[in-house]
Amino acid sequence: MGRVFKERTSVNEALQLFLESFSSLRHTEELPLEACTGRVLAEPVISGRDVPHYRRAAMDGYAVRASDTSGASPANPVFLQLSDEVEEGTSIWVHTGAALPEGADAVVMVEDTFTSGDMVEIRSQVYPGKNVGQIGEDIKKEDPVFEEGHLLRPCDAAVLASLGLDRVKVFRKPVVAVIPTGDELVSRDRAGDVPPPGMVLETNGLMASLYVEKWGGIPRYTRIVPDRPESIKEAIQANLDADMILLSGGTSVGKRDHAPGVVESMGRLLVHGVGVSPGKPVALGVIDEIPVVCLPGYPVAGLVALYFFVRPGIRKLGSVPQLPETILRKRLTAKISSKIGYVNFIRVIFEGDRVRPLTGAKSGALSSVAKADGYVLVPEHIEGYEEGQEVDVFLVE
Amino acid sequence: MGRVFKERTSVNEALQLFLESFSSLRHTEELPLEACTGRVLAEPVISGRDVPHYRRAAMDGYAVRASDTSGASPANPVFLQLSDEVEEGTSIWVHTGAALPEGADAVVMVEDTFTSGDMVEIRSQVYPGKNVGQIGEDIKKEDPVFEEGHLLRPCDAAVLASLGLDRVKVFRKPVVAVIPTGDELVSRDRAGDVPPPGMVLETNGLMASLYVEKWGGIPRYTRIVPDRPESIKEAIQANLDADMILLSGGTSVGKRDHAPGVVESMGRLLVHGVGVSPGKPVALGVIDEIPVVCLPGYPVAGLVALYFFVRPGIRKLGSVPQLPETILRKRLTAKISSKIGYVNFIRVIFEGDRVRPLTGAKSGALSSVAKADGYVLVPEHIEGYEEGQEVDVFLVE
Repeated sequence: MGRVFKERTSVNEALQLFLESFSSLRHTEELPLEACTGRVLAEPVISGRDVPHYRRAAMDGYAVRASDTSGASPANPVFLQLSDEVEEGTSIWVHTGAALPEGADAVVMVEDTFTSGDMVEIRSQVYPGKNVGQIGEDIKKEDPVFEEGHLLRPCDAAVLASLGLDRVKVFRKPVVAVIPTGDELVSRDRAGDVPPPGMVLETNGLMASLYVEKWGGIPRYTRIVPDRPESIKEAIQANLDADMILLSGGTSVGKRDHAPGVVESMGRLLVHGVGVSPGKPVALGVIDEIPVVCLPGYPVAGLVALYFFVRPGIRKLGSVPQLPETILRKRLTAKISSKIGYVNFIRVIFEGDRVRPLTGAKSGALSSVAKADGYVLVPEHIEGYEEGQEVDVFLVE
Repeated sequence: MGRVFKERTSVNEALQLFLESFSSLRHTEELPLEACTGRVLAEPVISGRDVPHYRRAAMDGYAVRASDTSGASPANPVFLQLSDEVEEGTSIWVHTGAALPEGADAVVMVEDTFTSGDMVEIRSQVYPGKNVGQIGEDIKKEDPVFEEGHLLRPCDAAVLASLGLDRVKVFRKPVVAVIPTGDELVSRDRAGDVPPPGMVLETNGLMASLYVEKWGGIPRYTRIVPDRPESIKEAIQANLDADMILLSGGTSVGKRDHAPGVVESMGRLLVHGVGVSPGKPVALGVIDEIPVVCLPGYPVAGLVALYFFVRPGIRKLGSVPQLPETILRKRLTAKISSKIGYVNFIRVIFEGDRVRPLTGAKSGALSSVAKADGYVLVPEHIEGYEEGQEVDVFLVE
């Protein structure tokens, strides 16, 4: 008999154990606003200025003393003298955004006026403050503007710029070492040649690196490591300066599956064997407070482990807030059968208003993911879904 | 009377006129797979290889001739000789992914075997092909793998890598010139000083540039241009090598609003005045087949114009497929009143399960967007929504 998984941890429990085993990074860096999109604020932002910093006209029109317009209407207009300053009986043209002249307390919009020579006919009564943007109306000095942990969007960069800031302190991106393991792997440097039988090009590490980057980490994609415990151990040791370590391959229970054992020997193995299909061989651990994920070598299983554990792991390390995910409600074109006791990851293709499950797809066939637009997760306790049933569909990102 | 908008085009009509006025770019570039995420394939990909390219064991176990296992069961096992080759009565250990030895046609999984000395006890009957991955089972040589226009995800990069590719041809990103206009604007080089009354820091161009980048364009953020038709014309001429031009500011109907007139004088003005609030002053045009968007200077109105016109414009230029948007169904904590004849862009904040509309927010107050998690669009013909009503909420991105 071969070795078997000692236990099988549910997805939720495994994720909780994993996320509890390490802390968010507190290292920060300062970036120019031009580079802050998608980054997370590492300190609250308090405004150092009033915005606007002067009383401004909110419309094109004539700056007036509101009291001078008392009773004005189209049938009964008030006439004011055009002048260089606003005092009783005089007015000055102002455009939107211009500073309101001293003495004025309102703006009559141009549509309610008529000019003739050096006189302006005011056809509408205004109250003090009408069409005037007051100092600090948008943001007051000392106002809290953003909290620590805010995920910066382009519109936020513009707000920060309007406060006179040109740099902003954000959390550093986590560095994630991606270590492909396996005697059968051939480096992509030799992608031009078909490898000999039994050998395959390294592609899982490439995939993991690109997801790490997409999710806000900095991938460190290392050389291929052979299936020997000492080699894996050395590779881990060489990357203990990273914030997270991903080992790809060698995580099942076969003779050549050394990754979980090495993690156990160097730190704590939290989980080996998760109730997700594909993806069961995932192992999760922590070495020197650095989270370690052992990704199954079967590409779809590896992808599931990336989605289920690496994505939330990077979010926690980088303090990236969880945004609502795009979830579509779609009807199935065909029945899905699912393995009880496992969350089943079912790839689906959009077909008109519906989704077609790729039910025959094997976990070794990454092409099934490439064909897929999304996926459906069937919970542990459910045997599957019927044709025509409405299900939640997540996008393959 | 000031000038008024000659017409008001509905959002949908304006967008259609705009998108019909220019073509998608056909320029391509080749990128390494490491840099292809988020890019759009400029040609179909046909596989040049079989994946897998050899018959492989799908499980750890013993390679056999299936006919040798006839009738095997735990109670009635078959004994095979361990050997260097598989022929009648012999077997070889194989691990998952290994090449199936010549002569073998199936694999008995290790769990169904027991070894003793140089003999292996087979406790399960297998049929030919059992636990064997056939050549081309995942992808066959000459199979179409991706269509032109496919948006590349990290998992797709891995599939391309498994085909032996290391580069991929994608559409070039559109270059978008972002030209801030306005006599009142102060360059952010002088962000440290509070500008004099009537002057403000340039922030709309920064915001537009960061959105352009986020949506897959390459921003070219130019110097500030004064409110003079000749200066605006010169700035446009200097950027006619771009794929799209954004003019920020000067797009309303005031005395200093020259942008739409300049566009009209240099090419075709398609739309000036759109039924969206805020955002009414948007102007759309085309000069030498280059799309031009005049963004209102009021920041929220400018943001709306970016979302409604620039985002789909960049997508069309870059052939970026439209992915399903994240839309949340949420109940309102308060009533929304809306202007008939306009699509109303209402900023909202998440509050528990509900959303609170920021109803008092002015279109000059970008801080209201920074506070907002999402927005609700009230269609032209609707006067508003009631408290407690369920509405579609889009995320502020």
